Amino acid sequence: MNFLPAQGFAHELDKQDPLKSYRDQFVIDDPGLVYFDGNSLGRMPRVAQEKAKQIVEEEWGRDLIRGWNKGWWEAPARVGNKIATLIGAAVGQVLVSDTTSINLYKLVMAALALGPERKRIVTDTMNFPSDLYILQGCVTQLGNRHEIVRIGSNDKELTPDLNALAQAITEDTALVTLSHVLFKSGYLYDMKAVTELAHRKGALVLWDLSHSVGALPITLDECGVDFAIGCTYKYLNGGPGAPAFLYVNKSIQERSSSPIWGWWGQNRPFDFGLDYTPAPGVARFLAGTQPMLSLLTMEAALEPLLQAGMDSIRAKSILLTEYASFLTQSLLAPFGFSLGSPVDSAQRGSHISIRHPEGYRINRALIEEMNVIPDFREPDNIRLGFAPLYTSFVEIWEGFDRIRRVMEDKKYEKYPKQKLAVT
Amino acid sequence: MNFLPAQGFAHELDKQDPLKSYRDQFVIDDPGLVYFDGNSLGRMPRVAQEKAKQIVEEEWGRDLIRGWNKGWWEAPARVGNKIATLIGAAVGQVLVSDTTSINLYKLVMAALALGPERKRIVTDTMNFPSDLYILQGCVTQLGNRHEIVRIGSNDKELTPDLNALAQAITEDTALVTLSHVLFKSGYLYDMKAVTELAHRKGALVLWDLSHSVGALPITLDECGVDFAIGCTYKYLNGGPGAPAFLYVNKSIQERSSSPIWGWWGQNRPFDFGLDYTPAPGVARFLAGTQPMLSLLTMEAALEPLLQAGMDSIRAKSILLTEYASFLTQSLLAPFGFSLGSPVDSAQRGSHISIRHPEGYRINRALIEEMNVIPDFREPDNIRLGFAPLYTSFVEIWEGFDRIRRVMEDKKYEKYPKQKLAVT
Repeated sequence: MNFLPAQGFAHELDKQDPLKSYRDQFVIDDPGLVYFDGNSLGRMPRVAQEKAKQIVEEEWGRDLIRGWNKGWWEAPARVGNKIATLIGAAVGQVLVSDTTSINLYKLVMAALALGPERKRIVTDTMNFPSDLYILQGCVTQLGNRHEIVRIGSNDKELTPDLNALAQAITEDTALVTLSHVLFKSGYLYDMKAVTELAHRKGALVLWDLSHSVGALPITLDECGVDFAIGCTYKYLNGGPGAPAFLYVNKSIQERSSSPIWGWWGQNRPFDFGLDYTPAPGVARFLAGTQPMLSLLTMEAALEPLLQAGMDSIRAKSILLTEYASFLTQSLLAPFGFSLGSPVDSAQRGSHISIRHPEGYRINRALIEEMNVIPDFREPDNIRLGFAPLYTSFVEIWEGFDRIRRVMEDKKYEKYPKQKLAVT
Repeated sequence: MNFLPAQGFAHELDKQDPLKSYRDQFVIDDPGLVYFDGNSLGRMPRVAQEKAKQIVEEEWGRDLIRGWNKGWWEAPARVGNKIATLIGAAVGQVLVSDTTSINLYKLVMAALALGPERKRIVTDTMNFPSDLYILQGCVTQLGNRHEIVRIGSNDKELTPDLNALAQAITEDTALVTLSHVLFKSGYLYDMKAVTELAHRKGALVLWDLSHSVGALPITLDECGVDFAIGCTYKYLNGGPGAPAFLYVNKSIQERSSSPIWGWWGQNRPFDFGLDYTPAPGVARFLAGTQPMLSLLTMEAALEPLLQAGMDSIRAKSILLTEYASFLTQSLLAPFGFSLGSPVDSAQRGSHISIRHPEGYRINRALIEEMNVIPDFREPDNIRLGFAPLYTSFVEIWEGFDRIRRVMEDKKYEKYPKQKLAVT
């Protein structure tokens, strides 16, 4: 990256960054690329690259079936316990397995079975659509006896209407399920407050941590959370489609059951008995054989995060999003951009949205001409994700300067207008 | 491997083997190892090893999020269509996704929803226990309104009682679900006959192809099969825990729905609409993001199979199991072994069981002292799996000779007796 005078402040921030050496632990294929999409697919840690090669150079071909006795079989629980340290969970509550969607399905079905007389599910319109689809499928599966209440926002999808949330959670509420950090705006829910709110009404709580895990400290046990899920290919850098994780609080494990009675969740799978009995503890939420190449590569990818620790990652993350918010105001507001994320860092994850009526075309120009990778989310959000382990302040400055050049030269005008979604 | 005179016939068979060159397409780490467990975890094809390295050396680190537009997103359908050619399915009916257990869950729930007034599910006691667990979970999920009828065998788990099967399938039967090849005995069901039997009573049929796919030709479309699932890490050599596949017959796709409403199965996932509508066709059975490292490595692993073709693979498979059956009678019967697999090759997959009261201890001695890897299945089955692409006749001879030496020297006596299963 060329070093321009105006980057001086960013350069100074990089010099003072206690995590600056971590960038070298990632494969940076194209140093000119500004990568603002680590919140969709994290960069590849070098240890993960090495691990993937090691599996095919040593483990699979040599160990063959014996590999299952050399650490493969225990991997879902072992890696789960590593992720547990990142999300404030004691051992024996987190498993790596399947996909975020599958895990959400299992835990929603488990939660609804724990309170069969309660008929309400509370979520919000800013949740991942995929999470809403799973909820709709569960409700259909259960004979449409439940009502899904989706609270809205009080400011154009920026922050949720917390008063509406409080009112929506009634004595009839079985489950409150929300994304901890909203995927468009980066809004960060107060996990403790919302969990307490739900528990006061006797409702269970399920958090989707996909956009917060690896970006900020999470304290599931301390908050008394019941269930959580999350993905491993965003800030955990586990690789495309790496297996997801789930959390079930110790206090409700023995009362909970998975709707999918798989042999990995069976009490004694190698007895080959013909009738299912659930394994003790969280293991009952396993189903089938996990993809080891993806799973073990993801396990290795956790190492830089575990070394750095979530507190220092969060400290840098706040600086990164503060700096990007500042650049939005100073560099981009004159071109009609507005900040689509909370101004208060206590309410913000590690990505921000910048909004512009031409966001769709601007995003395309950035990708196709400027070697910048953000992503676009309807109707007008350009999302910029910052991964504290490898995003530098100079990279942010450079990215914003390229956005400015797109606007000055009206580079976006040659692209077709956004096709409006028909849903 | 040392070449002994008695191996002459095996050596001759190898010389005449039209597939003999395929062994070189696999990584053979230890030439002295006799590997009879390719029906549990296939050996690693060299192309798969290369592909895994390529993903981490080129794709993930360089393409980053752009990889999803360069072939990752389409992979479940693309690889599904490749597997389709191995199982007699036209395009648009097979998907790679999730695990065998998860796919079984999805398809059983879909099948039962198609015939809600029918209350019987027919299977057998020799099915994978994992499949029986999934069925039990589905029945519980649906309020215990269904009865699972498990037909037995007429000869110590060797072959199913086909008369009992015919009687069990009634006008009240919603679903007949069986393993195409039984995991203990290697018995091969007549797919066409059983499917017709079920259809005559209006029942749907779901086949688990885990122990047949890649080992013998399968003709799903021709047999009019409704649903099928299978795993990719046995004879497909996809790697430990590689994603599984599912098949839904074109004729019932639009009437079928998955219980798990995931965003990959949504009609327009990138519109981010808040309400689920299923994608057209089989794609609705996708749920979440698939593990690309495992999935794409498995895709590469299919190449040798696709080159060789299922007919020549089946021809060699029959010779391999014939030869092993002959050795069981000639070399091992004097030590008290009996053949636990059908004598008629038309009723047999690509593995055989040899039975012995001391099977558990003999299996341990083979693994720990003789560099032979079979596996053991209760109560007395030692399973020997033969993968036509890399198992040689000399390897079979060598394996049987080592079993003979275990018996002659009573090497197994030093191992503890089998702990009886408590289920």
